[in-house]
Amino acid sequence: MDAIALLLLQIIVILLAARLMGYLFRLIHQPQVMGEMIAGILLGPSLLGWLSPKISATLFPVESLNSLNAISQLGLILFMFLVGLELDISRIRKNGGKALLISHTSIIFPFFLGSLLALILYPQLSNDRVSFLIFAIFLGTAMSITAFPVLARILSERKLINTTMGSISLACAAIDDVTGWILLAIVVVMARSSAIDSNILWTIIGLLIFIVLVLLVLRPIFKKLGSKFEKKGKISHDLLAMLFIFLLISSWVTEELGVHALFGAFVIGAAMPKDNKFVHAITEKINDLAVVLFLPIFFALTGLQTRINLIDSPQLWLFAMLIILVAIAGKFGGATIAARVSGMSWRDSGSVGILMNTRGLMELVLLNIGLEIGVISPALFSMLVLMTITTTFMTAPILEWIYYIRMVPKNYELTTSVSEIDANNVATAVKLE
Amino acid sequence: MDAIALLLLQIIVILLAARLMGYLFRLIHQPQVMGEMIAGILLGPSLLGWLSPKISATLFPVESLNSLNAISQLGLILFMFLVGLELDISRIRKNGGKALLISHTSIIFPFFLGSLLALILYPQLSNDRVSFLIFAIFLGTAMSITAFPVLARILSERKLINTTMGSISLACAAIDDVTGWILLAIVVVMARSSAIDSNILWTIIGLLIFIVLVLLVLRPIFKKLGSKFEKKGKISHDLLAMLFIFLLISSWVTEELGVHALFGAFVIGAAMPKDNKFVHAITEKINDLAVVLFLPIFFALTGLQTRINLIDSPQLWLFAMLIILVAIAGKFGGATIAARVSGMSWRDSGSVGILMNTRGLMELVLLNIGLEIGVISPALFSMLVLMTITTTFMTAPILEWIYYIRMVPKNYELTTSVSEIDANNVATAVKLE
Repeated sequence: MDAIALLLLQIIVILLAARLMGYLFRLIHQPQVMGEMIAGILLGPSLLGWLSPKISATLFPVESLNSLNAISQLGLILFMFLVGLELDISRIRKNGGKALLISHTSIIFPFFLGSLLALILYPQLSNDRVSFLIFAIFLGTAMSITAFPVLARILSERKLINTTMGSISLACAAIDDVTGWILLAIVVVMARSSAIDSNILWTIIGLLIFIVLVLLVLRPIFKKLGSKFEKKGKISHDLLAMLFIFLLISSWVTEELGVHALFGAFVIGAAMPKDNKFVHAITEKINDLAVVLFLPIFFALTGLQTRINLIDSPQLWLFAMLIILVAIAGKFGGATIAARVSGMSWRDSGSVGILMNTRGLMELVLLNIGLEIGVISPALFSMLVLMTITTTFMTAPILEWIYYIRMVPKNYELTTSVSEIDANNVATAVKLE
Repeated sequence: MDAIALLLLQIIVILLAARLMGYLFRLIHQPQVMGEMIAGILLGPSLLGWLSPKISATLFPVESLNSLNAISQLGLILFMFLVGLELDISRIRKNGGKALLISHTSIIFPFFLGSLLALILYPQLSNDRVSFLIFAIFLGTAMSITAFPVLARILSERKLINTTMGSISLACAAIDDVTGWILLAIVVVMARSSAIDSNILWTIIGLLIFIVLVLLVLRPIFKKLGSKFEKKGKISHDLLAMLFIFLLISSWVTEELGVHALFGAFVIGAAMPKDNKFVHAITEKINDLAVVLFLPIFFALTGLQTRINLIDSPQLWLFAMLIILVAIAGKFGGATIAARVSGMSWRDSGSVGILMNTRGLMELVLLNIGLEIGVISPALFSMLVLMTITTTFMTAPILEWIYYIRMVPKNYELTTSVSEIDANNVATAVKLE
C-alpha cells in the first residue's frame, strides 16, 4: 500500500473507532470525547496490538506515523488556539474572590500531593536523565490540570451552565487552564534546557519579549481586525489567513524558545479580543474540522503510545491506583473543601469539586508533551493516561448523583441550543462534542 | 530545528508568500488563486532555490516534505470533494445542446491537438518507461482541462454569472470537469497497470463496482442525510464525521484501485444531492480551511517540483512555446468556434473560449499526478506548469478586453454577495478566492 493509501486507511479506522466509541459512551451518558479517548487507546498496543500484533503493525507501522503526527500537531495547534479563545478573563473577574480561592486551592493542593507522590515514584519509575525537581513539578502539574472544554460540555449538556455553581466552575477552570499551562511551560523549559544544556535565562527573556509583543503589538492588531470584522459581519479569507499566520508564527516562536508550539497557540487564542461575535465566527470556521477530524487522530496517537501492558506487576498496579487516588483526593478533595469554605452548599461544593477533577484531553496533551521531552517513562505515561480516563469518566455519573438529575435524552444537538441561549457564558467551548 | 518547528516555518512562509502574491495579483485584476500559484513557483527551485540554494535547502529539505505532502494531499481531497460538490448536472441539462456541443468540441479539439503534439514531444522529452499511447492521452488530457473554480470566480467577480454566456460557460466547464477526470483516470490506470504489470481488467471491474455502489448505495444515504439536515438546519458532528468517513473511504478505494485518491474524492462530491442549502452548509464547514490553509501548501509543493531551469536550451524553450500555443489554439480556438457555430455572437463566443482556456489549479492537480506516476518528466512538467500559468493568467485581461468592462473595484468580499444573489448558479465555486 502506498503512503497516501495507508494514511487514508489510518484516518478511516481512527474516525470509525472514534464515532463508534463516542456513540456507545453517549449511550451511557458520557461525553463524546470520553469515547474518543477510549477509542484511541483501543487502537493502540493495549488492545489492537495485543489482539493482533499483525494487523496493528500493518495499520500503524512506526515509520508511517510521521505524517499522522504532523496532521495531529497541526490540528492540536488549531484546537489549543480555540481553547485559548474561550478563555474570557471577564468571567473570572465576575466571580471574583470565590473563583480565585477555589481555583488556587484546586491547583496548589493537588500540586502539593503530586509532588509528595513524586517522592515515592521518582526512585521507582524515573531515571537519571530527569532531575527530581523537574519530575516533581511535572507530576504536580499533571495532578492539577482541569479540562475546560470537557467541563463546559458536561455543564451545558446538563443545563447547569447558568447556575452559580456552573459559572464558578467555569471561572475556576479558566484560571486553572492558565496556571496549568504556565506550570507546564516551566517544566518544559527546565527539562529541555537541562537536556541540551542551554542557558535557561535566554529562554525566559525570549518568552517575556514574546508575551510583551503579543500583548502590546498583536492584541491591538486583533482588536482592529475584530472591529473590521464587525463592519463586514463575516470573516474574509484575508482575515482568516492573517489569523493563521499569526497563530503559526506564535506556535513556531514558542517551539523554538523551547516551550512547545501548543503554548504559543494557546497564548494567541487567549490574547484575542473576547467580542463574542468575532470569537464565535472564528470558532465556526475552525472548530468542526478540528474536533471531528483532527482530535480523534491525536487520541489515536496517544493510544499508540499508551501501553497498559507495561503496568505488569502488582507493585506497578499499586502505583497506578495510588496515582488515581492522589489525583482525585487532590483535585476533587481540594476544590470541594475550598468551595465549602468559600460558603457554598455541600451539594454545590461537591459539584465544583467533581467538575474540576475532569482532566480530559488537556491532560492528554500535557502527558504527550511530558513523554516527548522524556520527563516521564512510557510506563508512567500509561498510568497517567489511566488516571486521566478514570477522573474524566467519573465526572458525569457523580455529578448526576449529586444533583439527582437524570441526563437529558441524548439529543446530540442540545449543546448548541444551550450555547445560543447563553453564548456569553459558554462562549464556544461547548462545541466540543 | 525539530520537525514540528520546521513544518510550522514552512507553512508560515508558504502562507505569507501566497497572501502577498495573491494581493499583488488582485491589484492587477487577477484572481487571488493566480497569485498563489505564482507564489508556489517562486518558493521552488525556479526562484528561491536559484537565488539562495542554502535558504532553500534549509527551509525545504527533501526529507521534510513527507509531512507537508500528507497535509497537502488531505487538503486536496477535501478540495476535490468540494469541486465535485459544485458539479450540478441540472445546470448542464438547462443549457442542453449548446453546452454539450461546445464542451465536447472544447475537449476533442485540444485533445486531438495535444495528441498530435505528442508525436513531436514523445521522442524528445519522454523515455521508454512510458508508452506513446499513454503519453499521448495524458498530453491530450492536459490540453483539455478547464478550471471550473477559477472560471466561476472570474465570472462572479465581473458579474457575468447570470448572463447566457456565463451560464453556458459554467455548464461547459462542468462537463469538461467530468470528462477530464474520466480521461485522467484512464491514463492513470493504464500507466500504473503497465508499470506494475497488473491486470487492467480487474481495475476496470473494481471501478465499475465502486461507481455502482456510490450511485445505488451512497447516493440514497446522502439523500437521507440531506433531508435529516433539512429538518435540523445545521450539520451535526455525527453528520460531518460520516461525510468525512465516506469521503476518505472513497478516496482510499480509488487509490487502491490504482486510479488516484483525488478521483474518489471528486466522485463522492459529485454524487452528493445538489440541494443548495445542504451543499452550502457542507461547503461552509470545509471551504475556508481548504482554500486558505491547504491549497497554498499544494501550490508550494507544485512549485518545488517545477524547475524552469530544466528548460535550458533554445529547443526546449521552443517546445514550451509550442505547448502554450497548442493549448491556446485547442481550447480557446475550439471552444470559440463551437460557440459561434451554435449561434452565439462573436463576442460571447470569444468569451466562452477564453473562459474555457482557464486551466488553473485543476491542471496543476493533473500535472502533479502525471509527474507522480512517471508519465511526464520533470522538464515537461515544468513546461506544462508554464502553460497552465499562461493560460490562466490571460483569461481575465482578455475577457475584460472582449467585454470592454473595467474590473469592479477590488472589493474582496464581492463574490459572496454575488453568490448570494445567484446561489443557484454559482453554487459554491465562487468561494475560491
